[in-house]
Amino acid sequence: MQPKISVYIATSLDGFIARSDGGLDWLEHDSGKDDYGFYEFFGSVDTIVMGRGTFDFVVASGQWPYAGKRMIILSSTLTISSVPERLRGEVEILSIEPGLLAEKLAGEGATHVYVDGGITIQRFLRAGLVDELILSRMPVLLGSGIPLFGELDSDIALEHVETRIFDSGLVQSKYRRRDS
Amino acid sequence: MQPKISVYIATSLDGFIARSDGGLDWLEHDSGKDDYGFYEFFGSVDTIVMGRGTFDFVVASGQWPYAGKRMIILSSTLTISSVPERLRGEVEILSIEPGLLAEKLAGEGATHVYVDGGITIQRFLRAGLVDELILSRMPVLLGSGIPLFGELDSDIALEHVETRIFDSGLVQSKYRRRDS
Repeated sequence: MQPKISVYIATSLDGFIARSDGGLDWLEHDSGKDDYGFYEFFGSVDTIVMGRGTFDFVVASGQWPYAGKRMIILSSTLTISSVPERLRGEVEILSIEPGLLAEKLAGEGATHVYVDGGITIQRFLRAGLVDELILSRMPVLLGSGIPLFGELDSDIALEHVETRIFDSGLVQSKYRRRDS
Repeated sequence: MQPKISVYIATSLDGFIARSDGGLDWLEHDSGKDDYGFYEFFGSVDTIVMGRGTFDFVVASGQWPYAGKRMIILSSTLTISSVPERLRGEVEILSIEPGLLAEKLAGEGATHVYVDGGITIQRFLRAGLVDELILSRMPVLLGSGIPLFGELDSDIALEHVETRIFDSGLVQSKYRRRDS
C-alpha cells in the first residue's frame, strides 16, 4: 500500500520558506506556545524525507527533533562519514528519484511520509506524489528569499480541506490531491 | 484626509495572478455565481488605479465594468489618442509616483482607492501605501506565470483581519497595514 505523502510548511505571504540566508526570524511570534498543529501532524508521521540543504540547516541548529522516526536524506553527494557522529545511526542517505523512493517506502511498510525542504518538496510536487499539503501563511511580506514553489510540467489542482486561523495571524490551509 | 488604498486580487497557491500569456482560465470555477465578495468591495471604491499592462488587458477583453468610477491609468508611454475612442472620457492617464498620486487623490476627495495589476500593486506595496490587502488563493499550482509580489526594500508586516472560505476552495484572507 502506498504511504500518504504530506507536506507541512510555513511561508511568508509572498511564498518564501526562509530568507536568502536561511533566516526564519519572521516565523517567530509572541504567543510562543502555539505549535500550529505541528505536534499532532508530526505524531502521525513515521518517515521523514528531506534534502541535503535542509539537513545541513538542521545539523547546524544543533537540535535533532526527529528521534524515533525513520529519516531519509536525499542527496547524491552527502556521505555518511560527513554526517556528525551522533546522527549516523539516525539517518539514511539515498540518491533516488521521488517515485522510486515512494515505491521503496511502500514496500517497507511506511504509512505516512513527511517531505520537507524547498527543493525536495518541489521534486515531490512535480512528480505528482504529494497527497496532502498543509500550508501556513505568516502575515508578512519578505520581498525575497527561498521560494517554496517552483516550476511544474503542468497545473496541479488541489482540493481545499480546511483552513485554521491562529492568534498570530497565521492562516493554515490543508489541501489534498484532487483525484483526476 | 488620506484615502484608504486597497488591493483585491486572486492568485494561484504559488502566487501567480495570471499565466505568462495573461491567461485566467485557472480562475474560473463551476459555481459561477459566487463573486467572492467583489461586488461589495467594488461598491465601496470611488477610484481605480491600474497600470498600462492591466489596462491593455481590460481593453482587449472588450468589456468596461468600471463605469461610474474614476479610473487612473499609470503609464509614462500611453497617450489618450491610443485609447479606444469609447473609453477616452472614462480614463485619466498619469505618469506619477504612487506617493504623489496618493497625495493628489487625497486633495481631490478620493475616499477608497482600488489598486489593480501586478506591477502597480508591487509599486504601491513597496511605497508602503497599501492599507488593505484582500488576497484570494485558488487551490491550484501553476508552476509559472505573472507573480503578484515582487522585491521590497524591507519586510512588510500585516495584520490578519478575517478569512473566508468559498465552495470552490478559494481561501480569501483580508489583511491590513500593521501600524508601526
